[in-house]
Amino acid sequence: MNPASRTFERVAPERVAKALEALKDVLKEGQVKRDEASLDAYARDESDSGVYPPDVVLLPEDTAQVSAIFKACQAHGVPFTPCGARSGKSGGSLPLRGGVAVSLERMNRIRAISSEDLTAVVEPGVVTGDLMKAVEAQGLFYPPDPNSWEVCTLGGNVAENAGGPRALKYGVTRDYVIGLEWVMPDGEVLRVGRRTIKGVAGYDLVGLFVGSEGTLGVATEITVQLIPLPRQVMTALVVFPSVLHAARGVSAVLAAGILPRCLELIDEVAVQAIVHRGSFQFPTGTGAALIAEVDGNTPEGVFAELKQLGDLCEAQGATQTLVAQDASQRDRLWAARRVISPALRALKAAKISEDIVVPRSKIPDIIEQLKRMGADLGLTVATYGHAGDGNLHANILYDGPSQRPLVEEALRRMLELTVALGGTITGEHGVGHAKREYLALEQAPALLDLQRRLKAFFDPSGLLNPEKIFPALKRS
Amino acid sequence: MNPASRTFERVAPERVAKALEALKDVLKEGQVKRDEASLDAYARDESDSGVYPPDVVLLPEDTAQVSAIFKACQAHGVPFTPCGARSGKSGGSLPLRGGVAVSLERMNRIRAISSEDLTAVVEPGVVTGDLMKAVEAQGLFYPPDPNSWEVCTLGGNVAENAGGPRALKYGVTRDYVIGLEWVMPDGEVLRVGRRTIKGVAGYDLVGLFVGSEGTLGVATEITVQLIPLPRQVMTALVVFPSVLHAARGVSAVLAAGILPRCLELIDEVAVQAIVHRGSFQFPTGTGAALIAEVDGNTPEGVFAELKQLGDLCEAQGATQTLVAQDASQRDRLWAARRVISPALRALKAAKISEDIVVPRSKIPDIIEQLKRMGADLGLTVATYGHAGDGNLHANILYDGPSQRPLVEEALRRMLELTVALGGTITGEHGVGHAKREYLALEQAPALLDLQRRLKAFFDPSGLLNPEKIFPALKRS
Repeated sequence: MNPASRTFERVAPERVAKALEALKDVLKEGQVKRDEASLDAYARDESDSGVYPPDVVLLPEDTAQVSAIFKACQAHGVPFTPCGARSGKSGGSLPLRGGVAVSLERMNRIRAISSEDLTAVVEPGVVTGDLMKAVEAQGLFYPPDPNSWEVCTLGGNVAENAGGPRALKYGVTRDYVIGLEWVMPDGEVLRVGRRTIKGVAGYDLVGLFVGSEGTLGVATEITVQLIPLPRQVMTALVVFPSVLHAARGVSAVLAAGILPRCLELIDEVAVQAIVHRGSFQFPTGTGAALIAEVDGNTPEGVFAELKQLGDLCEAQGATQTLVAQDASQRDRLWAARRVISPALRALKAAKISEDIVVPRSKIPDIIEQLKRMGADLGLTVATYGHAGDGNLHANILYDGPSQRPLVEEALRRMLELTVALGGTITGEHGVGHAKREYLALEQAPALLDLQRRLKAFFDPSGLLNPEKIFPALKRS
Repeated sequence: MNPASRTFERVAPERVAKALEALKDVLKEGQVKRDEASLDAYARDESDSGVYPPDVVLLPEDTAQVSAIFKACQAHGVPFTPCGARSGKSGGSLPLRGGVAVSLERMNRIRAISSEDLTAVVEPGVVTGDLMKAVEAQGLFYPPDPNSWEVCTLGGNVAENAGGPRALKYGVTRDYVIGLEWVMPDGEVLRVGRRTIKGVAGYDLVGLFVGSEGTLGVATEITVQLIPLPRQVMTALVVFPSVLHAARGVSAVLAAGILPRCLELIDEVAVQAIVHRGSFQFPTGTGAALIAEVDGNTPEGVFAELKQLGDLCEAQGATQTLVAQDASQRDRLWAARRVISPALRALKAAKISEDIVVPRSKIPDIIEQLKRMGADLGLTVATYGHAGDGNLHANILYDGPSQRPLVEEALRRMLELTVALGGTITGEHGVGHAKREYLALEQAPALLDLQRRLKAFFDPSGLLNPEKIFPALKRS
């Protein structure tokens, strides 16, 4: 069954009214939005998995207000769903049962950056790109770089444990979060984690909360560790005759002990989509490409590594390695990478995008199997993304609603093929609403049951961000 | 109150007999040890926090046996405590209430190393150093390097979330563990995590279980990610007139954007202890020293970084930077580092060792405050360790049991000073038995309560590794 087509029982409006009544001395007028445009804006995200308007949007400005909102919702039985930039790709912030959308967007201050301690303290509504720029201005580096970094927020990154191209070398959000101020589902405020780089006192609740997709509480303050900004970065476009050649190039680079900071794959369909949009000129004969980015502290070391990478790829059939000569060439390469998703969308009436991961050695296998599956079903499959760590964004392009059953079939087959190769159904987008009915492909019933009980341990009423992550229980 | 002096109610022997009866068809004769020598050997670890013999030592050889042991203990109300090499520093593997010591030491096979996927799969009894050597032989690198790497096991590293000198650049055990086969306290066997480098499907139970100190279950299979082995490593001894000069050197290096893989501090007392033992010849006038280790892929890049590090330290008063010229010189430096703990022990009748962490900018402050505290109380304090990430091993040397109350006072003051500077009471050794009565210095009552309830969620009977991590509840 297509989760996106499901409807959910909505909360009774009078309960929402009672919760708002309880909050009337807590929130100012501009912090409560009930107009049609607002409800519509908070009804959707970037997952294409439906439109689910909340009954009201609340915009808290501090931790005490977040806590008060949670308490009021619990007291009156109102579902409540946290959100940030609503740029998520799995429906994690969709208010499926209506109720309250709790947007953290106004808590957007960078509270501290310490170049001595190599840490930063931010509010959840800070845009990821704003933090990046602020720390880079001090010679520091916050590596996690979800493609939506220009709009997404740190709070959303924490909820989804966001990754990005640089995850290959530098890891994902959870590798940088060391401490959280956390509002529990019942409104209690806790500080978990630490301000130091290392620490093992007590259970690692930071580890549990990061990536909990807004179902176990919400961060109202985030402490991240930073690293020194690498002084040299070089970026290249490596051109291949086909995606299989490119996939073999990825394997050869990693097997040789090179760890670029990014190694992004662009397949035939994605190349054509970029060209079609006029965003980038690929050399004639480009069947597929890699964007490789290497960093370090000396220009010689970085150039030597990129040169070796190019040589290894050429041994696998690459026809050219074009090194960006300046910042504007480099920006153009990355702009081409970022345009893939909208460019693919322009090729057909509709598309769905998955973020599967396979063990790195299985990258050529999965690409081949997905192409074959697409051919079997008569659907176009585009594969691109963070090939270096096995995390591929596999897109199915289709003509519209009439093809949706076929697409559902393709999606299920894709996820089954992924799991059969030892992979996972989501590398960085989360399960949320979009993939909950597929989690059982990967996780055993006992594990699903444990996690459902853990959710109930933290949120016995189940009012916080309901109907997410775990498959719906069959009614008997 | 000194936790090490406490006694705990031991389980009734007839319960243990019943559990063993239930296991008689599961375990072979050599897997059950009840002789005096065995009980004594499994009664202690490296924490100096007392001697607590189990009633029996069981040595399972596969997951099914571990599961059966857990089930039998639960069925008959027998406390059971997992252990590995018993090299822990916080008493985490001490069977405080007697019962069953479940040693994973015989599950010691490296099941797979994949240079293509950059992963390894090991059983929990594999010695950390054996895994390091096996992967390095294939050009791969498993960075976490607790000082006990020659004897400690991966299972113990997972339980404690072990760190080591290289944590500065490469992180700790939890940064490498991607999947676990996990035996729950009730004996149920689950697979959590994944085989891929990235993945966010469901809650991060791997994150929660790593560092749970044997209180939420035990790993019977561990999948770790590996990285390419850096091709060049250079190590240097940087000599300072005093520990405060050295601490300022650490800050200067990190502030300049250099990230050595190790930056270990050795203070005056530790220098003298090493010299006294005849383990290493320091240059005349050495008041304190840093061991700095830098890695990378080109000799020029690595040398340039080490040179810059030396220059920065010399600007802070360092008198010499002695670069190890070959592997044997490098080994001698690290051997000097590893001998500090036993060498300090030889200076006085007794010592306790803490592994505090402060924000990096507070390293000079904590060192100064600890020296002053030692002078106030008439105790010798030695400070050494992973200064680069703020994780210091602060040792109090004393004359024997008569000074123990004074030492307890010093310990409490040390941890209070640490927390007051924004630090944590344990960076890598764990809370276990040794520090449970101090956790409340750092964590709020609501957070302690949540964790106690989480422990009860996973282990309602509380029979798995009892009396650990959280402060004893006051009897009313």
